[in-house]
Amino acid sequence: MDQTQHPHVVVVGGGFAGLTLARALAGKALHVTLIDRENHHLFQPLLYQVATAGLSPGDIASPIRSVFSGKPNVRVLMAEVVDVDHERREVVFADGPGLAYDYLVVAAGAETNYYGNDGWKEHSFGLKSIRDAVQIREHVLTAFETAERETNEDRRRELLTFVVIGGGPTGVEMAGAISELGKHTMKRDFRVVDPTQIRVVLLEMADRVLLPFHPSLSDEARKQLEELGVEVRLGVKVTDVGDHYVEVDGERLPSAMTCWATGVKPVALAAALGAPLERGRVVVEKDCSLTRDPKVFVLGDMAHFAPEAGGRPLPGVAPVAMQQARFVARAIQRDLRGLQREAFQYRDKGFMATVGRSRAVLEAGKIRMAGFVAWLGWLFVHVIYLVGFRNRLVVTLNWCWSYLTFRRGSRLIAQRHSDASLNALHERRSDHPLNRVA
Amino acid sequence: MDQTQHPHVVVVGGGFAGLTLARALAGKALHVTLIDRENHHLFQPLLYQVATAGLSPGDIASPIRSVFSGKPNVRVLMAEVVDVDHERREVVFADGPGLAYDYLVVAAGAETNYYGNDGWKEHSFGLKSIRDAVQIREHVLTAFETAERETNEDRRRELLTFVVIGGGPTGVEMAGAISELGKHTMKRDFRVVDPTQIRVVLLEMADRVLLPFHPSLSDEARKQLEELGVEVRLGVKVTDVGDHYVEVDGERLPSAMTCWATGVKPVALAAALGAPLERGRVVVEKDCSLTRDPKVFVLGDMAHFAPEAGGRPLPGVAPVAMQQARFVARAIQRDLRGLQREAFQYRDKGFMATVGRSRAVLEAGKIRMAGFVAWLGWLFVHVIYLVGFRNRLVVTLNWCWSYLTFRRGSRLIAQRHSDASLNALHERRSDHPLNRVA
Repeated sequence: MDQTQHPHVVVVGGGFAGLTLARALAGKALHVTLIDRENHHLFQPLLYQVATAGLSPGDIASPIRSVFSGKPNVRVLMAEVVDVDHERREVVFADGPGLAYDYLVVAAGAETNYYGNDGWKEHSFGLKSIRDAVQIREHVLTAFETAERETNEDRRRELLTFVVIGGGPTGVEMAGAISELGKHTMKRDFRVVDPTQIRVVLLEMADRVLLPFHPSLSDEARKQLEELGVEVRLGVKVTDVGDHYVEVDGERLPSAMTCWATGVKPVALAAALGAPLERGRVVVEKDCSLTRDPKVFVLGDMAHFAPEAGGRPLPGVAPVAMQQARFVARAIQRDLRGLQREAFQYRDKGFMATVGRSRAVLEAGKIRMAGFVAWLGWLFVHVIYLVGFRNRLVVTLNWCWSYLTFRRGSRLIAQRHSDASLNALHERRSDHPLNRVA
Repeated sequence: MDQTQHPHVVVVGGGFAGLTLARALAGKALHVTLIDRENHHLFQPLLYQVATAGLSPGDIASPIRSVFSGKPNVRVLMAEVVDVDHERREVVFADGPGLAYDYLVVAAGAETNYYGNDGWKEHSFGLKSIRDAVQIREHVLTAFETAERETNEDRRRELLTFVVIGGGPTGVEMAGAISELGKHTMKRDFRVVDPTQIRVVLLEMADRVLLPFHPSLSDEARKQLEELGVEVRLGVKVTDVGDHYVEVDGERLPSAMTCWATGVKPVALAAALGAPLERGRVVVEKDCSLTRDPKVFVLGDMAHFAPEAGGRPLPGVAPVAMQQARFVARAIQRDLRGLQREAFQYRDKGFMATVGRSRAVLEAGKIRMAGFVAWLGWLFVHVIYLVGFRNRLVVTLNWCWSYLTFRRGSRLIAQRHSDASLNALHERRSDHPLNRVA
């Protein structure tokens, strides 16, 4: 099967883990096949900026193929893996015969988790893909446009109310960015609606936002959000999500666009691996492999890696995925040289979240920062990790331009949303302010 | 109705004509309402670059609102005008009561014309909107990806065959750009398919491409296309367009993506104006107004303006639309000062089309050019006319980057195309080259 005697490493998923792994194995004496359902690697930490018109989709999505242009031992396939045949040592595609592997690395990531309330899905938007982000952007911008034509003051306020569910980093970033988008564009570009009418509500079940951070930083982030005009509601429970409304502890909030940012779960492939699961994540050994097969690894958001037996698993964040990928690249190479594998050790370099323009929080060991310097740190780290020189340049230029001009570059509504229910919120009368020529 | 006695000019359409007109009237003693179905002005001459992954949609689409940020006498509405009530002097919206005007300027543009073969629409793509361009891009890129996984050599060639119908500037630009996209990305980023397998066919009914140009330039453009590997077929008639095929004079060509670039017709609003039509275009007077109402103007692609009585109308190109818009802005201001209107005179500054990297043709009066210098001229003119400093900068940088690296920046497939018929073209077998680890 292997004409050149080089082992074949099949990598499922072109996210942070898969991409890092394939890069680490590029040029080595191995064949690598990197498989993803999409044709692009997505820089998820900046997805909220696409959703809020700060960046274009292409700015944070790199074609996976072009990452490996000059690496002949890495092949890229756009395909969907639905199962693993452990007996035949093959991955099974949705649409064709399998592909044999010597080593298999599964890092297919996570998707939005509705915790059983799947009916809420059709009334809210997750934030995991370019599709999600573009939908949020178009619905928010369409709501602004509809509000500009709405004659009824109350309905106009409803059309300008946006609810973000979940006070983790994604929810905090989304809430801050929607508020900024509304305020800056409305001040200049709209005539009827104005910045005081926009309302962004952030809902969090716990008693503070940004749970993984120190409480003092959670408090800072809340203050920063409130400075931006975001209404932060802590210790509340969402009891229903419906057609342009969210019910919180029985109270019904209108919502022109509801963002569901309160959790993720591993994709369905995790359950197909035939390995024990913890909260949907695949339990892995100290070397990130499966107990049943040391040549099959699971990384990133799909993996339940507990540094201490029975302890909390590592979080589903990019640094974990990338460090695991580099570790597995070394482990495979040690195997081939007949050396013993080591145990994976996560080096926590800290975490950060941005709230808006010049606002962020940052925690690294004992260092805790909030405000402008934290924001510069955030900018720096995100540009450094963006894949590809071109994207780095475009994003940096976009940010400089937005910072200097307070403008958003990508306020494009490409699809028309014949959003009947949004129109139902909205009724035009002949006394519309626009019909009274000012 | 008009509290400040300033006349209200309603402009329907935010294309080249509408945008130019509203800009010319910004700051004058008039109220202007600019209405468009979309929230953005689209720089149509570069749409083919979005379709072929050279530019992002946001690079050539400017939010109309932000163009008029600092112009309080111009208001922007995102809405669809479906009729004009000449008696009440109101435009009628698809979804609400009308808006009264003192002056009305209708410049809603054109859409793809299938010349009665409306069944061909579902099997081919026009190129008039961001939606069209993104669909073409995603279908072409998905065909490349599917071909990379295809085992059957003949089917792989079918998956890499693209047919462009119509040898006008759009067709020529599309054919050249698809060919370049395929060749440059395949050479580096694909392992199974290679640049020799891609086939782009350009079909033209006349005996030369680029009919508006001098025959010597048509011949140059054909040669340039052939250098890029495009198969140019002249004097042929398309007899059928179906599911992944095009029939030409009875011969059936496979086609993974068919681009219909052979003509446009005015949008339906033209017929609603209650004025005589010529080939769907509204016949206008020497001052671009309707015979029935000198305070209603029709401009650009919608208007049939014949410089000589009974002669050929002006072509549907951006320079005509923009010159008419500036003329009408002056005509309205002359009215208000009690001066006589003049007759519109088109100053033809020439035309140009690009075939690909360093390849273009240009004609201005007696000047005829082809090749690199014509291409630089093309670049210069297109950047100058792009709306907004930011877009100009981003497009220029993108082009420099693409020119130096031969790469395309926006090779994003955002929607998954569960293109059953494309998959039917494509069958995978276990002897797939990808299953034989090289």
